[in-house]
Amino acid sequence: MREVSRGLHRFKDIQDHLAISRSVLTDRLELLLDQGVLEKREYREPGQRRRYEYHLTEKGRDLYPAINALREWGDKYLADPEGPSLLVTHRGCGAPVHTRLMCEAGHEVTSEEIDRTPGPAARARAAA
Amino acid sequence: MREVSRGLHRFKDIQDHLAISRSVLTDRLELLLDQGVLEKREYREPGQRRRYEYHLTEKGRDLYPAINALREWGDKYLADPEGPSLLVTHRGCGAPVHTRLMCEAGHEVTSEEIDRTPGPAARARAAA
Repeated sequence: MREVSRGLHRFKDIQDHLAISRSVLTDRLELLLDQGVLEKREYREPGQRRRYEYHLTEKGRDLYPAINALREWGDKYLADPEGPSLLVTHRGCGAPVHTRLMCEAGHEVTSEEIDRTPGPAARARAAA
Repeated sequence: MREVSRGLHRFKDIQDHLAISRSVLTDRLELLLDQGVLEKREYREPGQRRRYEYHLTEKGRDLYPAINALREWGDKYLADPEGPSLLVTHRGCGAPVHTRLMCEAGHEVTSEEIDRTPGPAARARAAA
């Protein structure tokens, strides 16, 4: 998923970048296709047989806030002394990007300011 | 971690809520203590021996944005037809809370508007 989200869409390119075997990468791509976070798109270069590129679906793109939040946590607690290995910035203005908890009224919220209440599916699970 | 973050701090309370064996819970708590996301605090009830409560550390609380982002992703793609099993709201104003990507200039950012560049530790890894 990391390779695809950074613009590597073709099997050979992804394989070269990860330095893993053909069969391991095939298994991983199958899993991600089955889960609906990647999709295949056909392409054909002149004189070659039909091949597939791998692209993130909306379901895959929607994982990005979680991935970014884990990356930030890792940068704070597990990074090398030099600092993070990846800088993430807003293309529009160049400022660093962070994962924040925001309420729909526009307030930034800390984990201590959160109320949790059972939702519509909670009763079904308790009864099951 | 879920139980502790929702206010269950004592071994017996956590065990009853999870319905798992004493040894499984002991192993899980040891792992979370070793990783520094939980800490032990002593307490003693009258006539009882000394016992410990389990609390989140700052490192543990800082995982919340990632956990919340995964919960939101699950609500969108994996929830029961009735809807989510948990509603998360801002205690201050009651509005629903979401995980957002924000840049330091205050713009909300989508995963398509992000630039990734190698950080200070990137060279070390490439050379290793």
